[in-house]
Formats: sequence, structure tokens, C-alpha cells
Amino acid sequence: MKKRHRVVIVGAGFGGLSVVKGLKGALVDVTVIDQRNHHLFQPLLYQVATASLAPSEIAWPIRSMLRNRRDITTVLATVIGVDMAGQAVLLADGDRVPYDTLVLATGARHGYFGHDEWEAFAPGLKTIEDATAIRGHILAAFEEAEREQDPARQQALLTFAIVGAGPTGVELAGTIADLAHDTLPCDFRAIDTRRTRVLLVEAGPTVLNGYPAKLSTYAEHALGKLGVEISLGAPVTQIEEGAITFGEHRVEARTIIWAAGVRASSAAEWLGVAADRNGRMIVEPDLSVPGHRAVFALGDTVAISAPDGSAVPGIAPAAKQEGAYVAKAIRRRLAGYAGQTPFRYRHQGSLAQIGKRKAIADFGWIKLRGAPAWWLWGLAHIYFLVSVRARLGVVLNWLWIYTRNQRAARLITRPAREAALD
Amino acid sequence: MKKRHRVVIVGAGFGGLSVVKGLKGALVDVTVIDQRNHHLFQPLLYQVATASLAPSEIAWPIRSMLRNRRDITTVLATVIGVDMAGQAVLLADGDRVPYDTLVLATGARHGYFGHDEWEAFAPGLKTIEDATAIRGHILAAFEEAEREQDPARQQALLTFAIVGAGPTGVELAGTIADLAHDTLPCDFRAIDTRRTRVLLVEAGPTVLNGYPAKLSTYAEHALGKLGVEISLGAPVTQIEEGAITFGEHRVEARTIIWAAGVRASSAAEWLGVAADRNGRMIVEPDLSVPGHRAVFALGDTVAISAPDGSAVPGIAPAAKQEGAYVAKAIRRRLAGYAGQTPFRYRHQGSLAQIGKRKAIADFGWIKLRGAPAWWLWGLAHIYFLVSVRARLGVVLNWLWIYTRNQRAARLITRPAREAALD
Repeated sequence: MKKRHRVVIVGAGFGGLSVVKGLKGALVDVTVIDQRNHHLFQPLLYQVATASLAPSEIAWPIRSMLRNRRDITTVLATVIGVDMAGQAVLLADGDRVPYDTLVLATGARHGYFGHDEWEAFAPGLKTIEDATAIRGHILAAFEEAEREQDPARQQALLTFAIVGAGPTGVELAGTIADLAHDTLPCDFRAIDTRRTRVLLVEAGPTVLNGYPAKLSTYAEHALGKLGVEISLGAPVTQIEEGAITFGEHRVEARTIIWAAGVRASSAAEWLGVAADRNGRMIVEPDLSVPGHRAVFALGDTVAISAPDGSAVPGIAPAAKQEGAYVAKAIRRRLAGYAGQTPFRYRHQGSLAQIGKRKAIADFGWIKLRGAPAWWLWGLAHIYFLVSVRARLGVVLNWLWIYTRNQRAARLITRPAREAALD
Repeated sequence: MKKRHRVVIVGAGFGGLSVVKGLKGALVDVTVIDQRNHHLFQPLLYQVATASLAPSEIAWPIRSMLRNRRDITTVLATVIGVDMAGQAVLLADGDRVPYDTLVLATGARHGYFGHDEWEAFAPGLKTIEDATAIRGHILAAFEEAEREQDPARQQALLTFAIVGAGPTGVELAGTIADLAHDTLPCDFRAIDTRRTRVLLVEAGPTVLNGYPAKLSTYAEHALGKLGVEISLGAPVTQIEEGAITFGEHRVEARTIIWAAGVRASSAAEWLGVAADRNGRMIVEPDLSVPGHRAVFALGDTVAISAPDGSAVPGIAPAAKQEGAYVAKAIRRRLAGYAGQTPFRYRHQGSLAQIGKRKAIADFGWIKLRGAPAWWLWGLAHIYFLVSVRARLGVVLNWLWIYTRNQRAARLITRPAREAALD
């Protein structure tokens, strides 16, 4: 029996799983490698960080998602490099996974523009652990404020600064404001959680930069109504423990969350190929790696441009389109076709939730805001969840948030090491 | 205005919250202190450890549960002692909480009978963090087995040893067997998860010691059908990394879980009063602390006897009865009544689930086993959950487990420190 073509996909995010989907029935052997056992529905990760959803409601075992595809082997392992000459992926435990075609869909972490020392004081939000740590931090701040006698320290505990007013920053700010104003007030005795300050600090001129001006303005207005204070046009110059400096202001804030920038995975380093200043690999128009036709890269770990010259955004639909394109490219090559038209990104639309009852939506031909956009936002996200079970779980949680202001996952959990000291 | 009588309750488990409930309308000021922000529904904690339920489905913010009782202040803090002369509880952060009446309901951790060095290799199950760590350990064992080439090491990875065949041990063993036989088989390619060995190691002569002989025998039989290997009458003599020794046997098992014994909290040490060898405080028949009429203690941190002379078991209904009794005792004292009849434990029944379709139930006048007992077990646990929301969440999860063998919370998460090394 002829040996099947081996496709190795590193990363089971939206991009990697889209390649998997596109290779269904392609008579290739597929190996999916990820350092986590779960695929993460990143667009709702901020809801885990704000106690609205449980981690397992937006994270599902990769192995289980792919169980019915007998052509697929799932490997939980950390990749540390690629042997290009030997055509094998190198794993941290010393193993090698040979490939005929390699797809790198390894994503990005948050990036601090050269200020990595800020990470300790202003964590970012990319993984389930990031989200549960931020959730614990936010909830503990209210707990400590309840017991703090000093008014200045109490106000610092009740001050939450979010850096970056992209969709994640806007969604975090709005949800923290909701938490403070709607969910928590009756639970505390010494503090009025409605005195909570939520600051949204953006270096650029508008919130939701890149969205139509009308929607940005609306978002700004809607956030203001939720009590979010917005600072525009002043980049952050200093972050230390419990304080953030931007423009002329230094604000004491016990909780600072970084939603300002990303840094690509190490994939470009593994291959020794060119990357932009955020570590994103430069790829050919067909998403193959320059000089390495057997290797594709896609998603947040690459830098590519849309047909109009703008950068393809780091969002799930873009990664999915790239994954579908790469799967097709692999099929074409195996079928013996030469060449392929370049990847063309089609922007399907932008959505962002602002607090719990409003959103903005931009589909080019139609722009929505307020409640109609919120319904669209909710339905779209439920639709894209992985299973009926996941949909029911999320809907149940949202129902309780919207009708009763109760958030289901208000847990402060601690790292095992710390808990062991009890 | 006359100052109200101050009742301080340490611990918001079943016992502490039962005191809170019993004091409703009593015109006292109640302070509830707990080192966690959540009350934990311990009877279902093993389902978190086996990926069946999410942590937030069985843990709810104490503060939120008590929000409508304006007489209650909730404090998230760690107690480190009691100043008996000064009538104040001492907190780790240096604060003092004064009391007129103190109730200690501080529970227990797992105990290793003098072999504390075993804890590192055989963790116990008492907190949410314990449960998610064990869940990660169990799921990671299957992942590693999938990639292990050496047959002996692979078998060790697929061997799970549970020490102690009380209800928790029996429930863990049955559920891990279900996980291996029903949930996981289709997900793996290299291993057959049905080859998993689940060992239940008990020093005593039967499983579910203390239950009627007929039900113990049935449980043994039912566990055998699930593929659980039971060892009776041979105490564990050694636990090291990846291996357990009991009687003449030394078994290589990558996962060892301790469900054999508990050690009471430090409450007896705080007061400097007598305790039994498991650290449980000796209390008066009215649950007050000998020589300290203003202090009550109850639940897993005390040792008391039932009317028939047997020890009151460390289960939720016992703690609840004690809590109700203490609340009544406090009310009587405040009303000026002298003395109270001693606490009398009424055993309402015993329930234990065995795998996902069977259980045993013993209510004295009626003993059930198999499917009828399972229905009773399920309905009783759902009934005792804290809210409609929690019930819907758990029922939804169970529905998927029972109809589709899918477990909703199959996440391997890592302590923040380790995750930061990525």
C-alpha cells in the first residue's frame, strides 16, 4: 500500500482546525499538534475573565472535536523547532514528527512593544489560565476594597485600567463596568461597587480604531454611559505595580489589563525566515513560506495584506479563510495542479459587544449599533460555538446575566502552589 | 441604640451556612469569615476531578448566596487564631474580628495518617484546585500514554489507583472507569483506553465500610462490572512517585488519588483545647467548646458521637444538623433560657453513586441499589444544589454524559507559573 501524504498541522486554533476541515476526505494522514488539550473560542475569552462564562464553556478537547475523523492523529506536545532539511517537527520531549506538508498555525501571545517588564503588572488575555487569573484578580480587588480602611487605597482597589481600545479592550471595559454596577452592588456591605472606576486607555485617536467613524463614536458614547472613562491619544509610558502612567496622568489602579498588542509565536524563528517587528512571518501570496514550498503558515503568526493593501486583521474569520485556502492549496498540489491564485481576504464584518445590552456591527453594506447589533452579536457567537451542548451552556449563562445580573463563574481560584500553603 | 449581639462564624461550608440560615431574623449581627470566596458543594467534587462538571457548577460565591441578608457581613480572609480572652478572631493580615459568640465550622483537609510525604504523589480531593489538578493529571496520563512507546510505562500511565473505598473512593473509581470505557475510546489512536486499570485499595474488610453488608457487596459487584479492581484488607504501606505498595503488591500507577482519611482544621490548636488523633476538637454535648461557653464548634473539625455511640459521620447532612442546632442554642441563650438538650444526630441515609448508572441508598427503613438508587441519588443531589441556575447547569451536563458519554469539562489547565514558561 502506498504511503499516504503526511500533513502536520501545528496549532488547533481557528486556523489550524479550518485546515483540518478542508482536508476532509483528502486521503492524507493528518497530525494535529497543540501544546494545549483544548481548542479555545477566543472571541468570548473576555467573558471568562469577567466571571460570565466558565472556562469549559468556551474550550473543548481538540481530540474530542476530531474523534470521528479517523485520518487524524492528535498530539498534545510543545513544538520547539522544525528540521527543514529532514522534514520533521521537533518536540520538547525529543520526539520528531515527520511531515510531507507542514502547516504552522501557532497564533500569537500579547506583546508589550519592548516593555516585557509590564507583563507582571498588566497581564494580557490569551489563554484560559490568563482568563482565570484575571478573573481572580478582579474579584479579589473588590474583596480587598471591602476590608480596606484607607480611602485612597480603597479607591485604587476599585480602579480598573484597560490598555488598548480594540474589541477586546472595549468588551473588557464594558463587562467590568456591568459587573461593578449590576452584579455586585448588593453583595458588599462596606463599599459601593458603583463607585468603581473603569479606565480605557488608548494611544490612538479613537476607540475601535479601523471601524467606521460613526460606530467608533457610538461605542465611545455607549461606554461613557456605562461609566467607562476613556483616554484617547496618549500612549502608556509606564506601568508599575498598582499604577499606570499615560500622557500627563498617573493613576493608581490595583488592576491593569493589557489588551493593546500581540506578539506572534516563535514560528518564524523555528524556520529562520523573515518576520515583521511583531514577530509575524512574511509569507508568499499563497501562504507558503518563502523558499520552503512544503511549509505553509497562517493566522496570527503571519503578516499578510488584504487585496486593498491593508493588513489582514487578527480575527477568527481571517484565520478560518486562510485555513480553508491552505487546505485547498494542499489538495491542488496533490492532484498535480501547478500554482494557485493568491489568497484573498474577504472581510465579512466586524462585531464588538459594549456592555451587556449594546454592540456595534459593521458589514460594509450595513452598519448596526445598539440593541439590534447586540442581538446579531449574540446570535453570531452562539452560532459559531462548537456544539449544541456548548450553545445551551452559554445561552443559559447569558440568560441569567441578562435577566438577573447573576454571573455564574465568580470563583477566585489560586495556583496549586499557593493553595498548598494553607 | 443597644449594640446587637455579634456572632462570628468561621467557615462557610455546609455547617457554617446552616448556622447562618438558623439565625435568620434573630436580631444579631453575623459575620461569616472564609478563606475562599465560594461555598463548595463537596458531594459532587469528584465530578469536577473527573471532567464531568465545571468548577463553577458546584461552587458559588458566599457573598452572593448571602446578599439578601442585610444582617450578614461576609469577609474573605484567612483565620490564624482566636484571642479567647479578648473575644476576637485573628486574621492573617493582622485584623481582629470581635465576637460575642463564635462558631468554628472550619472543616477538614485530607490526612495521611502520619505519612505527609505521600501527599506529593497521592493528592487528595477537598478544594476546587485539588479537583482541577487531579482532572489535569488524569487527562494528561491518557495523553502521555498515547505517545508512550514502552509498553510497561504505557500501562503505568493507564493505571489509576484510588486509596480508600469510602463513598468518595468508590465514586472516583467508578467515574474514572466510565471515563476510560465510555467517553475516551474513540478519541485516541495509539492506545485503547478500555485497557485502563482502575485499582481501589482499601485497608478495611469491605468497600463502603459502615454501610449494610448487602449494599457493600452490591457495590463491590457493580464496581467489578465496571472493571474496577478492588483490594481489601491490605493497608497501603508505601507511596512513591508513580508506584503504590499495599499488602504483597507493588503496582506502578502514574495516577494515585488519596481518599482514605481526613485531618481536621487547626481550630483545636487556635483554642488550645483537646483534640482526637485526627485533630478533631472534643466538644460538649451542646457543641460548645469545653470551658468556653461563647464558642461553638461543629462539622468535620469536631469529634462527636451519635446517640448509639457511633461517631457522627463527616457528611453534609450531619454538619447541617449541627449548624441548625447551634443556631437554636444561640437563640435560646439570647432569649435567656438556661441549658439545652444535647445535640442528637439523626442519620437520614447514605447514598453513593457507582459509575454512571448505578448507586446504593440506605435509609434504614429502605435500602435501594442499582438504577432506582441512582435516580434517587441524582434527584437528591440536584435538589440540594443552591439555585435553579446551578440545577439547570448540572442537569445539562448529566444529560450529555448519560445520553452521549460526553463530559463537558475535559480541560487540562496549568498553574500560572508553569504556563508562563511557554
